[in-house]
Amino acid sequence: MARLSSLLSFSLALLIFLHGSTAQQFPNECQLDQLNALEPSHVLKAEAGRIEVWDHHAPQLRCSGVSFVRYIIESKGLYLPSFFSTAKLSFVAKGEGLMGRVVPGCAETFQDSSVFQPGGGQQSQGQGFRDMHQKVEHIRTGDTIATHPGVAQWFYNDGNQPLVIVSVLDLASHQNQLDRNPRPFYLAGNNPQGQVWIEGREQQPQKNILNGFTPEVLAKAFKIDVRTAQQLQNQQDNRGNIIRVQGPFSVIRPPLRSQRPQEEVNGLEETICSARCTDNLDDPSNADVYKPQLGYISTLNSYDLPILRFLRLSALRGSIRQNAMVLPQWNANANAVLYVTDGEAHVQVVNDNGDRVFDGQVSQGQLLSIPQGFSVVKRATSEQFRWIEFKTNANAQINTLAGRTSVLRGLPLEVISNGYQISLEEARRVKFNTIETTLTHSSGPASYGGPRKADA
Amino acid sequence: MARLSSLLSFSLALLIFLHGSTAQQFPNECQLDQLNALEPSHVLKAEAGRIEVWDHHAPQLRCSGVSFVRYIIESKGLYLPSFFSTAKLSFVAKGEGLMGRVVPGCAETFQDSSVFQPGGGQQSQGQGFRDMHQKVEHIRTGDTIATHPGVAQWFYNDGNQPLVIVSVLDLASHQNQLDRNPRPFYLAGNNPQGQVWIEGREQQPQKNILNGFTPEVLAKAFKIDVRTAQQLQNQQDNRGNIIRVQGPFSVIRPPLRSQRPQEEVNGLEETICSARCTDNLDDPSNADVYKPQLGYISTLNSYDLPILRFLRLSALRGSIRQNAMVLPQWNANANAVLYVTDGEAHVQVVNDNGDRVFDGQVSQGQLLSIPQGFSVVKRATSEQFRWIEFKTNANAQINTLAGRTSVLRGLPLEVISNGYQISLEEARRVKFNTIETTLTHSSGPASYGGPRKADA
Amino acid sequence: MARLSSLLSFSLALLIFLHGSTAQQFPNECQLDQLNALEPSHVLKAEAGRIEVWDHHAPQLRCSGVSFVRYIIESKGLYLPSFFSTAKLSFVAKGEGLMGRVVPGCAETFQDSSVFQPGGGQQSQGQGFRDMHQKVEHIRTGDTIATHPGVAQWFYNDGNQPLVIVSVLDLASHQNQLDRNPRPFYLAGNNPQGQVWIEGREQQPQKNILNGFTPEVLAKAFKIDVRTAQQLQNQQDNRGNIIRVQGPFSVIRPPLRSQRPQEEVNGLEETICSARCTDNLDDPSNADVYKPQLGYISTLNSYDLPILRFLRLSALRGSIRQNAMVLPQWNANANAVLYVTDGEAHVQVVNDNGDRVFDGQVSQGQLLSIPQGFSVVKRATSEQFRWIEFKTNANAQINTLAGRTSVLRGLPLEVISNGYQISLEEARRVKFNTIETTLTHSSGPASYGGPRKADA
Repeated sequence: MARLSSLLSFSLALLIFLHGSTAQQFPNECQLDQLNALEPSHVLKAEAGRIEVWDHHAPQLRCSGVSFVRYIIESKGLYLPSFFSTAKLSFVAKGEGLMGRVVPGCAETFQDSSVFQPGGGQQSQGQGFRDMHQKVEHIRTGDTIATHPGVAQWFYNDGNQPLVIVSVLDLASHQNQLDRNPRPFYLAGNNPQGQVWIEGREQQPQKNILNGFTPEVLAKAFKIDVRTAQQLQNQQDNRGNIIRVQGPFSVIRPPLRSQRPQEEVNGLEETICSARCTDNLDDPSNADVYKPQLGYISTLNSYDLPILRFLRLSALRGSIRQNAMVLPQWNANANAVLYVTDGEAHVQVVNDNGDRVFDGQVSQGQLLSIPQGFSVVKRATSEQFRWIEFKTNANAQINTLAGRTSVLRGLPLEVISNGYQISLEEARRVKFNTIETTLTHSSGPASYGGPRKADA
Repeated sequence: MARLSSLLSFSLALLIFLHGSTAQQFPNECQLDQLNALEPSHVLKAEAGRIEVWDHHAPQLRCSGVSFVRYIIESKGLYLPSFFSTAKLSFVAKGEGLMGRVVPGCAETFQDSSVFQPGGGQQSQGQGFRDMHQKVEHIRTGDTIATHPGVAQWFYNDGNQPLVIVSVLDLASHQNQLDRNPRPFYLAGNNPQGQVWIEGREQQPQKNILNGFTPEVLAKAFKIDVRTAQQLQNQQDNRGNIIRVQGPFSVIRPPLRSQRPQEEVNGLEETICSARCTDNLDDPSNADVYKPQLGYISTLNSYDLPILRFLRLSALRGSIRQNAMVLPQWNANANAVLYVTDGEAHVQVVNDNGDRVFDGQVSQGQLLSIPQGFSVVKRATSEQFRWIEFKTNANAQINTLAGRTSVLRGLPLEVISNGYQISLEEARRVKFNTIETTLTHSSGPASYGGPRKADA
Repeated sequence: MARLSSLLSFSLALLIFLHGSTAQQFPNECQLDQLNALEPSHVLKAEAGRIEVWDHHAPQLRCSGVSFVRYIIESKGLYLPSFFSTAKLSFVAKGEGLMGRVVPGCAETFQDSSVFQPGGGQQSQGQGFRDMHQKVEHIRTGDTIATHPGVAQWFYNDGNQPLVIVSVLDLASHQNQLDRNPRPFYLAGNNPQGQVWIEGREQQPQKNILNGFTPEVLAKAFKIDVRTAQQLQNQQDNRGNIIRVQGPFSVIRPPLRSQRPQEEVNGLEETICSARCTDNLDDPSNADVYKPQLGYISTLNSYDLPILRFLRLSALRGSIRQNAMVLPQWNANANAVLYVTDGEAHVQVVNDNGDRVFDGQVSQGQLLSIPQGFSVVKRATSEQFRWIEFKTNANAQINTLAGRTSVLRGLPLEVISNGYQISLEEARRVKFNTIETTLTHSSGPASYGGPRKADA
């Protein structure tokens, strides 16, 4: 009996092991038989806002190879400069503010009009303070912002409502040379809760990177006293990485909506230093698909924003009205994550096996992953449904199932008729009835089915 | 005793676990001490043909990062449109037929000569049926066909003998953004046996992707009645994915061997819509290596077919006579899979450790994987030996060991003499005796060894 | 009791399994809480030198995705031709010699001045021996050598001191299509100790690749007798892969420091055959950063050596004097491995969590991995500190934390002041005090901290 039980235990362990082992030997993280509308799994609270992190271990995000983060920055909140080892594409979901990126080797092209003498340490200090720094940009709802790996970025909310930014991090791209975990590097501030989304980092408070050097080294590197060097380490600081700015935030900034400022020349301007990194997707006058009664869709790919060619990411912004339907389609060459910024929709997603893996509502603040090849159809169920889709290809291509540019339209009638065992006449209706390309109206279950039947 | 046994069981389980765990922590799927000539492991039967799938978990295919499939389409058989998340390169091993691909956003450039009025739903139907669709091409033995990820493709056998097509799917390329499993997406038809090559999908019949949507959604998207929408789901259909066409298959097709037809202009023609995707490798007049007595070798890389630059795949077609030998060589920058279309050959393959990992016959219908750096020599043992090799690089480079352009020819005599401890005179023979570049004659074991020995 | 014990054993096994499984399901090889200065873990002894291999399973090398090797070739030693499936970047750390690479399809452009008749087998042999082979180059300390995957390379030490070459192999790049193990393929020689760095290969002597073919096949391929073919297999040879050349080593070589020789034309010259693959990084007159009192830094990227664009590797050579400090910086888009060629330095490295993961000396012959995003500061602690850094990006970018082109210099004062809770005046010192870009002096702990404090 004892031997039996031990043998049993051994066999069980062996079985479990072999099962597990096989599953790992032949990874199939895209064997998705069910998708979910995902909410953030971790919240990092800070003095003037919070950072909400989606669990990148969720099967559908692992399959897509991305991580997703939402930054909520309160009025007067400053998201301190940090960088990632991955390419990042961000979207301003709400609010307005300022954004700065520091690109290595580029000149400080924003400076006070009064002449600034380099070697500032020796400068007179009585007559008002002057500064020079790299480009600062106004950001507002609808802005899409591309960021290179290793490039530090900060945000400041100078409006009155919260500034909400969502970002996708492309973990699976070759630009991320670390493992497939999102790893923010903080230049200032800290994260007392630690990198809770990574195993083994849950209990360790995350410090800024200056904290890792000894103060003496910092003192020598910055040529400052050791006390100031210690201050740079934010050790006594428990404000997190989004802090509240006291008093005015007097950075040099261009006037709103102005032309880009004249910039100093140092030879790199034509390349990386002055490369445009933001575009606004919320202006319907630039929409790629526009139907007054239904809504609009705008895409941002490497033809619009050449920097995306390096990041291998692109974005799609959609805004549709109640009962408008985005015709069924699939991503030919990219994974996508869809984040709802306003309203809600009913969505169906179909996997490679022809199974419906999602059939439900997605609503504001939720995230849905749509892997390569998976077909999706969306129908607005609120007054307005607006979303942003990030795609892991600089020129993501869509194939539609129905409509004037669809795959069924491109097939011969004989293929459709034989394939689906329908008459040529029915095949003709399947192929030609829908003359829209992307958006159509869906006012009720029988409204379109009926009339067409009649005219057949 | 019981405790002993249980401890033993525990230790065993632990040992097995640790062994497995270590092996997985440091994956070494290219530690290949033995290769095999592979046959298909799964057969999907359909009404008018069958689909034969090689097990992509076989170590040598896992190392190469590819999957391999053979389609056998009977006369009047139609392989219904489907697509993959991977780049695909196909070769017509036997037969002839028609092929259509549907590229998103491209115009329906094939149409009946009578003027076709768009918005076909309202068109008069009495006076004969008219159609418009995307390009349809004739295919025949020797055609090599490149297909983008996400692009739907169909084949029709309009000949009298079976149409046999073999395809390689590049699972490891960055173009496949799903996991390393071949995942066909069916637009029509189905697969009652399920995706038997994927763990966890064995018992699940695979449906077409329209099946995943509710009929009401399809009815709205296609503006058809719900009954027709249900018909699109092929639920009552058990014909599989290769069906028999009833009656004539009257698609619009160009005359055989004609110039490419004049195409409608929509601005994308110069890029993707009219990009050439096929080339025939069976015309010896285009061969890269040609020796009337021995055979020929033709390669297809991105210089011949620019689309291969995006797919990162290339192909080599060989046809040699009895006792002709392909000089020993290795692939410098690619993995290769070799599929035998006719006859048989004796092949030796050598791995990184200098071990002979394959030494035997390969014959028609078998597949052999030749990983990067592994050296291979082939000698025809039947009247005719013909094969197709797919390589995972748009410009795969070969290094030969012997012959006029070989690596030993490029080495100084002193290196050869010292390296192999032979005299300069012997080194000179090793280096200069073989003046062919790729193909040589191998009429018997001593024929070349003897005479040279005599003249030494 | 027995049941208890067996259940316990089962539970334990299950627990261990689950733990292991989880760790492997979500790999985090870059979760580095401690780095080490690494020494070679395996030494392969040969007749005229030794090959020292770093353990590529060490966590910090696995994170970086590279392997590292040191070749020590004694005077008159010949490292026999071999190739890898990876791109390789080498640095001559000491000594001088000759180097040859054999690029497939390129002409033998080095030949004796007397006319050479092709088809040498039939040539008269009495009147002195003549040769032709591919390019042979002189190499010396400071040379950095780029090698394509699959390209065979040999080295010969024609000096009097040992020739020391260090090489990085980029295992994680898409150019390596095998697994992530360094796999040398030997054209001649052998390795009696076996590939000890790979699991399962420890006990197997490694042979040259000709050894894997049957002598009869070699005899036919090379058109030589079977005895010579057997000789090519080096089976009785126990000299390893670095052998001692007996007598003079009379290869055709250009005069030292000459112009590149006139080369034969075969149509590939402008591309791969004559592509420059080496550059010397030890000439301070070409340095990118040069301060007479402190030292210099030279970089080699794809703008200097276009071939690096294909290899996706670059290099940085540094040479600094006692107490010179390289300002703290991080690699924005690359992993780096740092190898010390002379002297020693004190180094601090900081990870993504803000933890100091390395704080110690690195000295001659040691290797330190610096993953993407990790910050590092170096200070020479010997008379001279010289190192070579290999980076896994053709155009690796550095971000400095302090100095005139640093990230803190690019930030507005308000961000610094608010972020670190210091006054604008302190922020101004942090930002502007250090006017150097890369190198500064670090003469003692308080030297810079003090004075600045005084002038504050």
